[in-house]
Amino acid sequence: MLEELAIILIFAKFFALLARKIKAPEVAGEIVAGLLIGPSLLNLIQTNDFLTDMAEIGVILLMFSAGLETDIGQLKRSGAKATLIATAGVVVPLICGTILYMAFYGFGGWGSENFIRALFIGTILTATSVSITVQALRDMGKLSTEVGMTIMNAAVIDDVLGIIVLTAVISLKDPKANLGIVVLKMVLFFVFAIGVGYIIYQIMKWVDARYPHTRRIPIIGLVLAFGMSYVADRFFGVADITGAYCAGIILSSLDDSAYIERKMDINSYMIFGPIFFVSIGLQTNLKQIDPSVIVFSLAFVAVGMIAKVIGCGLMSRILKYSKDESLKIGVGMMTRGEVALIVSQRGLKAGMMDSQFFTSVILLIIISSIVTPIILKSLYMKTDAKEKAQAAS
Amino acid sequence: MLEELAIILIFAKFFALLARKIKAPEVAGEIVAGLLIGPSLLNLIQTNDFLTDMAEIGVILLMFSAGLETDIGQLKRSGAKATLIATAGVVVPLICGTILYMAFYGFGGWGSENFIRALFIGTILTATSVSITVQALRDMGKLSTEVGMTIMNAAVIDDVLGIIVLTAVISLKDPKANLGIVVLKMVLFFVFAIGVGYIIYQIMKWVDARYPHTRRIPIIGLVLAFGMSYVADRFFGVADITGAYCAGIILSSLDDSAYIERKMDINSYMIFGPIFFVSIGLQTNLKQIDPSVIVFSLAFVAVGMIAKVIGCGLMSRILKYSKDESLKIGVGMMTRGEVALIVSQRGLKAGMMDSQFFTSVILLIIISSIVTPIILKSLYMKTDAKEKAQAAS
Repeated sequence: MLEELAIILIFAKFFALLARKIKAPEVAGEIVAGLLIGPSLLNLIQTNDFLTDMAEIGVILLMFSAGLETDIGQLKRSGAKATLIATAGVVVPLICGTILYMAFYGFGGWGSENFIRALFIGTILTATSVSITVQALRDMGKLSTEVGMTIMNAAVIDDVLGIIVLTAVISLKDPKANLGIVVLKMVLFFVFAIGVGYIIYQIMKWVDARYPHTRRIPIIGLVLAFGMSYVADRFFGVADITGAYCAGIILSSLDDSAYIERKMDINSYMIFGPIFFVSIGLQTNLKQIDPSVIVFSLAFVAVGMIAKVIGCGLMSRILKYSKDESLKIGVGMMTRGEVALIVSQRGLKAGMMDSQFFTSVILLIIISSIVTPIILKSLYMKTDAKEKAQAAS
Repeated sequence: MLEELAIILIFAKFFALLARKIKAPEVAGEIVAGLLIGPSLLNLIQTNDFLTDMAEIGVILLMFSAGLETDIGQLKRSGAKATLIATAGVVVPLICGTILYMAFYGFGGWGSENFIRALFIGTILTATSVSITVQALRDMGKLSTEVGMTIMNAAVIDDVLGIIVLTAVISLKDPKANLGIVVLKMVLFFVFAIGVGYIIYQIMKWVDARYPHTRRIPIIGLVLAFGMSYVADRFFGVADITGAYCAGIILSSLDDSAYIERKMDINSYMIFGPIFFVSIGLQTNLKQIDPSVIVFSLAFVAVGMIAKVIGCGLMSRILKYSKDESLKIGVGMMTRGEVALIVSQRGLKAGMMDSQFFTSVILLIIISSIVTPIILKSLYMKTDAKEKAQAAS
C-alpha cells in the first residue's frame, strides 16, 4: 500500500506540473498519470478496495469544498438573468447528450435501462467548470466586466442545477423507481438538509464565535461532510456527493468557512485529490476501448462544447446581450472539469455508465480546457480591435 | 465507510477535548473514544482493512513528522551528557521491562519466542515522550534552565536510540533471524538511508530554493516518507516507521522543513492521526482481558515509570548533577506517549505482542502523563521554598 501511494503521488504531481506547463488543466495531468501507471500502459498499479475508498473520500472532499466556496449572497443577487442562462446551459446539453447516446446505442423506450444510460451521458454534459475560463478572463483583465460576472454567476447556478439533475437521474437507478417517489425523496432530502442545516449552522456559528480558528472547526466540518453524504445515500437514495455539497453550503456562510476550506484543500491536494484523479486513469483501460467509443467520444466532445454555446449563447441573446457578448458567454461556459469526472464516477458506481466512457469525458475536459481560452482570447482580440478601429474613426 | 469516519472523527475530537480539560494527553482521549465505540463497549465500529490501512498511514505521518522536528544541530551540540543520560534511560527500562514480562510469563530460554516477546515489552518502555514534561516546565518557567535543557536534549537522543532498539528487536521476528544478519541489515539500511538521504537532500534543497513554499515540496516529502517506509520494510526487514523517521530526518535541515511539517500536521490531525489512536482503542477488547494482564499492567506502569527515574536519575547523579536535579531529570523523562503506542502497534503487527497489552501501554501513558507534571511541580516547589528559606536566612 505504501509503495502504491508513493508511486501515485509522485506521478500525479509530476504530470500535473507538466500539464500546467502546457496550459492544460492539472487534473488532466493527473488522469494521464493514472493512464500511464495503470493497465493501459505500465500496469504498475491496479485499482483495489483501498484506492477506491481513498478516491471516494477524495470526491467527498472536492464536493464539500465546492459547497464551501458557494457564495449564497452572490447566488441571491445574481438574479434572474444568470439563472436563465444557467438553466439553458443545463437543459440543452442534457437533451443533446441524451440524443447523442441514443443515436449511437439506440433508444430502448422511455424509462428503459438504455434510456437511463443515455440520460446519464446527458447529465455528464451539464456541469460547467469555470475555473479555466475565470483564469483566462483574469489574464485578459476582463473578469469584472458584465460578461465576466455573468459567466461566473451562471456557473455557480449551473453547479447547483447540475447537482439537482444528477440527484434525480441517479435516483432512477432503482429499476422499480417511480419518478414521483424519486422527486419526493429528493425534495425530502433538501427539506431535511435545510432543516438540519439551519440547526447545525446555528451551533457551528456559536462554536466558531467561541473558538475561532481552532482545529475543532474543520474537523466538525469534515464530520458533517461525511455524515451528510452517508445520510443522503442511505436514507434518501440521493447521491452521496449531493450530501457533501450540501454540507459545504451549510457551512459556507460561517466566518471560518475559508479557514475550513483551506484545511480541506490541504488534505485534498496532498493525498485524496490526486488519488481520485489518478484512479480515474487506473479504471480506464485504453487497450480495451471499443472502436465505436472512439467515434462516440469525438462526437461527445463536439456536442458537449457546442450544446453549451447554443444553450447559454441563445439565452443570452434572448436576454438582450449583444451577439458578441452572447457568444463570449456561451464559449466561456464550455469548459468542463472535475465535476464532470465526479458525476461519471458516480454513474460508474451506480452501474449507469460503462468505464469506457471515461475516455470521452477525459477528452472533453482536456480539449475544452485547452480550446476555450484560445477562442475566448481571439474573440476579445477581435472586439478590442473593432473598438479601437471605431475609436480611431 | 463514510459513517465510520464520521463517528470516529467526532468521538475522537470530543474525547480529546475532554482529556485536555482534565489535563490528560489528548491521545489518551482518542484511545478512550476508540474503547467506547469499539467492541469493549458500544460496538458501533469494528476494525477492518480500510481502517487498518488508514491507521498505518497515520503512523507513517506521525513518525515522519517526528523526524522532521529533529534538530540535528541541537543533537550534535547536546553532546556527551545528554547522550549518556538518554542511553541509561533506554537500557534500564529495556532490561526491567524484559525481566518483568519474564517474571509473569516465564523465561523460555535465550532467543525463544517468549524471550523475544519479553524483549519487546522492554522495548515499549524505552521511548520517552517529553511533550507533557516540556509543557509542565514551560508553565513553571523552568524550561530554559539546565535541567530543562538536559531533559529536552536527552529526550531527542532517546527517540533515536529507541528507534534503533525497535529496529533491532523487530528484525528478530524472523525465527531464522541471526543476530549478526539483523545487525548487518540494520547497518546496511542506515548506510543506504544516509547515502540516498544525502542525494535526496541535495535535490530537495535545489527544488526548495527554486520553488519555496509550493505544494510540490510537502508532496515530495510525503512520497519520500512512503517510499522510505516501503524500502525499509521490504528490502532491509527494518520497521517501516524507521524508514518514515529517517525520511523526516533527511528533510529536517531544509529551509522548508517547518512548512512540510505544518502540511503533514494538518493531514495528521484532521484524519489519519485520530484514526490511528482510535483504532488502538478498537483493537482492545476490555471484555476479554485476562485477569493476569490487569495485574501485569499495574506492575508495568510502576516499573515503566520507576525504571526511567532510576536510569536517567542515576546517570545524572554520576554526571555530577545535584541529587535534586537528578531526581527532576529522572521524573521529567518518565512520561510516555504516542511513540510507545506506535511501537506496540508494530509489535502487534509483527506478531510479537498480544493486543491485550495495549491496555498496559494505554494505562502507562495516561498515568505517567497525569502524574509527572504533578510530581515535577511539587519537586520545584520544594526547591524554590528551600532557596527562598536560604535567601532569607
